[in-house]
Amino acid sequence: MGQTMTEKILSRAAGRRVEPGEIAEVAVDLVMTNDITAPLAIKEFKKTGLEKVFDPNKVVFVPDHFVPAKDIKAAEQAKVMREFAVEQGAVYFEVGRAGIEHVVLPENGLTLPGQVIIGGDSHTCTYGAFNAFATGMGSTDIAAAMALGTTWVRVPPTIKFVYNGTLPEGVGGKDLILYTIGQIGVDGALYAVMEFTGEVIDALDMDGRIAMANMAIEAGAKTGIFACDDKTREWLARVTDRPYEPVESDPDAEYLKVIEFDVSNLKPVVALPHLPSNVYPADEVGDMPIHQVVIGSCTNGRISDLREVAKILKGRQVHPNVRCIVIPGSQEVAKQATREGLADIFLEAGAIFSTSTCGPCLGGYMGVLAKGERCVSTTNRNFRGRMGHREAEIILAGPQVAAASAVLGRVASPAALN
Amino acid sequence: MGQTMTEKILSRAAGRRVEPGEIAEVAVDLVMTNDITAPLAIKEFKKTGLEKVFDPNKVVFVPDHFVPAKDIKAAEQAKVMREFAVEQGAVYFEVGRAGIEHVVLPENGLTLPGQVIIGGDSHTCTYGAFNAFATGMGSTDIAAAMALGTTWVRVPPTIKFVYNGTLPEGVGGKDLILYTIGQIGVDGALYAVMEFTGEVIDALDMDGRIAMANMAIEAGAKTGIFACDDKTREWLARVTDRPYEPVESDPDAEYLKVIEFDVSNLKPVVALPHLPSNVYPADEVGDMPIHQVVIGSCTNGRISDLREVAKILKGRQVHPNVRCIVIPGSQEVAKQATREGLADIFLEAGAIFSTSTCGPCLGGYMGVLAKGERCVSTTNRNFRGRMGHREAEIILAGPQVAAASAVLGRVASPAALN
Repeated sequence: MGQTMTEKILSRAAGRRVEPGEIAEVAVDLVMTNDITAPLAIKEFKKTGLEKVFDPNKVVFVPDHFVPAKDIKAAEQAKVMREFAVEQGAVYFEVGRAGIEHVVLPENGLTLPGQVIIGGDSHTCTYGAFNAFATGMGSTDIAAAMALGTTWVRVPPTIKFVYNGTLPEGVGGKDLILYTIGQIGVDGALYAVMEFTGEVIDALDMDGRIAMANMAIEAGAKTGIFACDDKTREWLARVTDRPYEPVESDPDAEYLKVIEFDVSNLKPVVALPHLPSNVYPADEVGDMPIHQVVIGSCTNGRISDLREVAKILKGRQVHPNVRCIVIPGSQEVAKQATREGLADIFLEAGAIFSTSTCGPCLGGYMGVLAKGERCVSTTNRNFRGRMGHREAEIILAGPQVAAASAVLGRVASPAALN
Repeated sequence: MGQTMTEKILSRAAGRRVEPGEIAEVAVDLVMTNDITAPLAIKEFKKTGLEKVFDPNKVVFVPDHFVPAKDIKAAEQAKVMREFAVEQGAVYFEVGRAGIEHVVLPENGLTLPGQVIIGGDSHTCTYGAFNAFATGMGSTDIAAAMALGTTWVRVPPTIKFVYNGTLPEGVGGKDLILYTIGQIGVDGALYAVMEFTGEVIDALDMDGRIAMANMAIEAGAKTGIFACDDKTREWLARVTDRPYEPVESDPDAEYLKVIEFDVSNLKPVVALPHLPSNVYPADEVGDMPIHQVVIGSCTNGRISDLREVAKILKGRQVHPNVRCIVIPGSQEVAKQATREGLADIFLEAGAIFSTSTCGPCLGGYMGVLAKGERCVSTTNRNFRGRMGHREAEIILAGPQVAAASAVLGRVASPAALN
């Protein structure tokens, strides 16, 4: 019987063939935490009595959620992480060399095909875009993996998603994943792996794939995963020369389900409050005035996202009722955006161009919402209270819808600009 | 008997000749508040039962301390201010068109020679650089002025500071004011006006004068003030064509004191914890390792400050132990810095380039300090706990010392880079 790519990765990491449903001990290639989850994991790690993490080159710390420190508590947490990272000789990205973990790790060539990656962050599934098995875990599990270099995982079954057709101009990975979650619901892939396939996926660029893998968790999935193809290899060749061993699903692999979509007529979509599955075409939601737009995050803070936004904001002005907050996904993205003139475009349009941070996505800082405010955001969660007040509204969208909405002061498809 | 420039402004605003020590009712030309002080002032204003502020063109609101909102409370406060400003048709600068109040108002031509300006912020004295009488007041006084267009002021006496000599290369306005406060102490000008004069002042650029006026309050002064000269007029001509009526001190004006300094041998200085008067030459403090550098604020967040920093950071790297946070004083400064390549230099050096905010200066966000951390900052106050934990240390400096310290990882004069 054949195996899915996920089963192959976990079998290799377990040193034996594993099947969905069984619990396996697997070697991890990378253990990652951030300024929120690291202090807890470090505390747990210290309880083991061990002096050193299993391999400092495979343990990564990224301050990104609340740095530059938003308050004393955040400063203390970042300090705990920094001091531990330095003491261990672990991989650490300081403010000014960092950014959002799920942007920073790939751009430093740390997330490779065939790897097992665990992270103290629910959007660790992002790395599935690179043909890795990557999933979020609690701080105790993270601590154990930092100590042992292994973790326990219940091998998940895989749901195969096949996207047929041709994606229309102006519709991207974020639209695809929102559409998918809209179709299957926020528990539509519960504890399964979402394997993204089909001619549409073959044609999709890496950043689009990353946005999709990133939001697999929003459908309840253990993770999302993509095959490694020429696009993957070209992307990785730009950031690393480390070897890697991709996996592909066997033709006779067994899937929990196969779900096919024809997306040739897909329009830019939004997820209305308060669930990522509450999905509608952006041009069908009627007149919804907005107060804020956030463009960034581990979902859509990459350079290609900012390029799309700049195309729309160039020569236009942000609506006077709107605060438009553009946040590069990393220091590298900030550099590139500044170098190629995107930052100028944002600032001239009356948007702000922040330093890289998770910030507003989780109501951290840099754009927290007041009662009654409505925000279009390229982030990944629109749960009640996620970005601030419980009576604020978050509308998820791709970068183009977000930019068009910023200009028009209401939820809008880019087509509405013409 | 002659009058000082301050007495002339207040006499004109009172409609009669006023003398130091007396309490006068004066017309105000501008009333300003920010996202922290506006909500209180608005609440008090509403108690008057009045529907409209005295003149919406003279009432200004600037969100700058905690925006983009750092938490729900900040978001609610900014919302109160925004809604009142819009309802009143008052002057309001939205996020993306704003920045730090004391940077934004001058660059919009709102602060002119001869004016009386009051603000709900202690550093309102900044506008003295433009030959205005400008001072901070509590929110109740601000509310009354918003209602009536007048305020009460006890006419302050003036201390004349005369700076003789020639300022050495690399020593600027921030060094001058820190040196002055070091000489006279934090109550050295208590409730007096600091009138800055002399050949050194004549030669000093406007941004240097702004930094000096800004910190008059740190010597306990009611405000600081400068004459209006060609430099002032040229600066203002770039931002406004509104008429204004400068004032100058009469040769026989009476001063509380005249204090003369020869600053030809002044070196770049720092104010060590925990008072702005704790001033030493930067190269005489010994080995003081640092964790963070903040460059920005209403004191030193202007384009000339950032240019000085860029000169030092260009081709260099921020020390690995240091988070270097560069914050432009306004959206306009951010645009200019991006346009002329300074943002690239900061980012390449491993500094972050934030959106404009007061942020870390008052421990708001964007670089709050943990226990035991030490920060060199171009801001204006190094009181215990000002930027975060009470056991953190803030060392005040000008932009060049801050940049050199960021590179060397310790408190350092730019000369130490060679």
